[in-house]
Amino acid sequence: MRELVDLNCDMGEGFGQWVLGDAPDEEIMALISSANIAAGFHAGDPNTMDRVVKLAHSHGVGLGAHPGYNDLQGFGRRMIKTTPEELVNDIIYQIGAIREFGRKHGIGLQHVKPHGALYMEAAVNAELSQLLVDTLGKMSSDTILFCMEASETYRIAKRSGHPVVREFYADRDYGNSGSIVFTRKVGRPDPEAIAAKCVKACKTGKVTTVEGDEIEIGFESICFHSDTPGALDMGRAIRQGLIDAGITIASAATVLAQSK
Amino acid sequence: MRELVDLNCDMGEGFGQWVLGDAPDEEIMALISSANIAAGFHAGDPNTMDRVVKLAHSHGVGLGAHPGYNDLQGFGRRMIKTTPEELVNDIIYQIGAIREFGRKHGIGLQHVKPHGALYMEAAVNAELSQLLVDTLGKMSSDTILFCMEASETYRIAKRSGHPVVREFYADRDYGNSGSIVFTRKVGRPDPEAIAAKCVKACKTGKVTTVEGDEIEIGFESICFHSDTPGALDMGRAIRQGLIDAGITIASAATVLAQSK
Amino acid sequence: MRELVDLNCDMGEGFGQWVLGDAPDEEIMALISSANIAAGFHAGDPNTMDRVVKLAHSHGVGLGAHPGYNDLQGFGRRMIKTTPEELVNDIIYQIGAIREFGRKHGIGLQHVKPHGALYMEAAVNAELSQLLVDTLGKMSSDTILFCMEASETYRIAKRSGHPVVREFYADRDYGNSGSIVFTRKVGRPDPEAIAAKCVKACKTGKVTTVEGDEIEIGFESICFHSDTPGALDMGRAIRQGLIDAGITIASAATVLAQSK
Amino acid sequence: MRELVDLNCDMGEGFGQWVLGDAPDEEIMALISSANIAAGFHAGDPNTMDRVVKLAHSHGVGLGAHPGYNDLQGFGRRMIKTTPEELVNDIIYQIGAIREFGRKHGIGLQHVKPHGALYMEAAVNAELSQLLVDTLGKMSSDTILFCMEASETYRIAKRSGHPVVREFYADRDYGNSGSIVFTRKVGRPDPEAIAAKCVKACKTGKVTTVEGDEIEIGFESICFHSDTPGALDMGRAIRQGLIDAGITIASAATVLAQSK
Repeated sequence: MRELVDLNCDMGEGFGQWVLGDAPDEEIMALISSANIAAGFHAGDPNTMDRVVKLAHSHGVGLGAHPGYNDLQGFGRRMIKTTPEELVNDIIYQIGAIREFGRKHGIGLQHVKPHGALYMEAAVNAELSQLLVDTLGKMSSDTILFCMEASETYRIAKRSGHPVVREFYADRDYGNSGSIVFTRKVGRPDPEAIAAKCVKACKTGKVTTVEGDEIEIGFESICFHSDTPGALDMGRAIRQGLIDAGITIASAATVLAQSK
Repeated sequence: MRELVDLNCDMGEGFGQWVLGDAPDEEIMALISSANIAAGFHAGDPNTMDRVVKLAHSHGVGLGAHPGYNDLQGFGRRMIKTTPEELVNDIIYQIGAIREFGRKHGIGLQHVKPHGALYMEAAVNAELSQLLVDTLGKMSSDTILFCMEASETYRIAKRSGHPVVREFYADRDYGNSGSIVFTRKVGRPDPEAIAAKCVKACKTGKVTTVEGDEIEIGFESICFHSDTPGALDMGRAIRQGLIDAGITIASAATVLAQSK
Repeated sequence: MRELVDLNCDMGEGFGQWVLGDAPDEEIMALISSANIAAGFHAGDPNTMDRVVKLAHSHGVGLGAHPGYNDLQGFGRRMIKTTPEELVNDIIYQIGAIREFGRKHGIGLQHVKPHGALYMEAAVNAELSQLLVDTLGKMSSDTILFCMEASETYRIAKRSGHPVVREFYADRDYGNSGSIVFTRKVGRPDPEAIAAKCVKACKTGKVTTVEGDEIEIGFESICFHSDTPGALDMGRAIRQGLIDAGITIASAATVLAQSK
Repeated sequence: MRELVDLNCDMGEGFGQWVLGDAPDEEIMALISSANIAAGFHAGDPNTMDRVVKLAHSHGVGLGAHPGYNDLQGFGRRMIKTTPEELVNDIIYQIGAIREFGRKHGIGLQHVKPHGALYMEAAVNAELSQLLVDTLGKMSSDTILFCMEASETYRIAKRSGHPVVREFYADRDYGNSGSIVFTRKVGRPDPEAIAAKCVKACKTGKVTTVEGDEIEIGFESICFHSDTPGALDMGRAIRQGLIDAGITIASAATVLAQSK
């Protein structure tokens, strides 16, 4: 049973005049312990970053960069076929932006979590995951990498001794492979069902797959998405469900420190 | 007479497949002591940044961020009318990118120099210069700000005690106001004439304006542009001219330290 | 008294995953007689254009291109200082996109209406308005140009004999100059007050300015914005108000034809 | 033996201040009979389009749209994984832009040729090629589609009776499958060898593959790339080689008309 868990959410995924989802950043930020902040490639502009990073600081939430493919129109949910070198440079660029706004607001970078199709690509692309882990290892060795357990990213980070956090996806379905079922559009889930799924995963280490089986799932953080319809209700239900079940929500860094 | 001077150049102003100017980055980098590196808004992509920042490090050149207006098509030479807050956030974003590639290659950020129309706007916009100086003062107090002497930027940075370097423009014309004549297109200058102009400025502290007068000009750094046609020959002529005149070329940080 | 009036609205101002405002395109389209469709520079992606142009066709609404400054982040509400030639090329490019989707859905281009800061710039920039009118005159002489009465655009189009429609702005304030007060952010207006303002303008040809005076205002079309909070209620109120006052809503082309 | 052949080249592949390759557009345009003009997604801005479309008109060259993936940084040479619907909308958008500049300069659209990775994707993606052919068939039935013989695009266009032109690639290598070997970077070829390869293909209908075999190759147009180093010399050699061999260079439309 997991008694300490991080709760993370993608934040700042608007752009200019546009916002994503129906949940105000302020309200979501009050629920979570780690924030993955869009850095301008799939979403997020400097003004939004400034505002959301400040919000993360004022709520004591762990600051994370959320780099994506350079594709505003596709919201980073379309794979762009290119080299690991190019992708890692894109990631460094985006990390730099978030770290700099963190510097402005007096909050250090806790973690990096690739977004959308880039996250899914890293999960299956060992060469990309290796280059990412090696590069982070050299230039930012204490930056926690977020990933799925069923991924090359996790396998390689673990082997390299790089700090890594496995995520449990509250609002995504799992397949028997242990990977989530990637989608570009999501429906409105039932908050209580999502909360129950999270609590069960914490208590039993298991999740039911789309094939109807139960599989084991290891994680240190629970992720939900602020652009899922009804995200605020879902987030509140997850948070309350965890608390009611006696599970403490703490930042990824705290959870990792405890795990050692 | 100025015995120590910085020599700076805008670098990495290509994008993807495109390069700007006819001078290879490697050759220019060997001539200068400070590099202003494009950060993705008016030019520069992460792969280019990675390569050029590494080059700056290997040549012992002072690393500078060269933030511009978010306008690839206009190459940052078109003013975008917006608030100081938005512009400073754009600048922070771009500084973060350059600093992060510096982190990768083991080189700290020496300076920031706004590009093109943003540089010219800051020169006359006291509110923008003030916010930029204040923000840098809080989050990056040792980062040298580059500007013209005849500018709000210089006046405000000086008053605030923020480290500031005045530039002398080798390949731009001066007006009697002490400001350069801004242009979107530049012709091919005579390298020797440019070199002589620089040496004269160092020795006498004077420059001849487009009106035909001589005005006093204060500076710690000489700037030339890598996209000026014949930039490499011009850069070599300036460097040789300075050396022949007994003037030592050193990074902006060194020149500033010496000035104190 | 105006017995026939066009009712136009900016449409398709989302981008990728993002939508703007709280009003569904389908509902707005059912209220109006001319649609100004974003063409990718300040908003609008090809998928959105495809969908919204189709919607215009199915509702029998006049098809308009709504070209803006090339500035997604600023939503075309920030002036970019450049030449009339560049701006007219930007406009041609965007007109082409909308016309092509019109071709796909079997609907011809009725009008062009510059967006946001570009509309305001054309209003005061005679050189830009002249080049735009001349260019349209040569390549698209039946395309109606939308503008304010108090503008260089109107003066020049009128003088050139180019078809032109003056707009009355339902949800913007007027100054005594007859120009609207440009803004980047708008509050939620009272639908009935807006409707009354429109009906009064139709009946009396007058509007009350922010200075508190009544000025004369000539127009053939009433404009409201789909990103104004409560746009759907406002649009419904305007439409109903006009109908109740015995004013017929018809496309700009119909209104112009009637005026001759 | 082929006695009439089209000679096409990608044109206008600069962006803003940047140009691609070392060959002036004017000189290339004088050599070819069909121009594929970049439309803003992988390269090409409205000012460049305006200039190059005008140039095509003044040289009597067939006007073609050259739509690419929306990826300036990758120059359209990186596949973006998305739906055929999205890609065809991207293509329509770009066609509209080129057609509109053609309208300005009094030249109709002759053809469309997808660029780079989008061309290669269409070649193997039957669903995409089908949707593209169907859409063109409905809205632009006389617009010639350019493709490789060894492609789904050709097979489907042919079956649908849509006008289609097969290309022979002067400066790309062929594999035994009849497809070209896709690359993001190209070296400097020998102009005479390239010319000889083209003349041989016209005379014998054969090309030697990278595997060393001779395969049959059907085509109506020869393509070379303006960004291949030494493009101007190569283009001149091809043109002269064809003329010396008694082969007439004519626009794609002329070649197709003759074939019937």
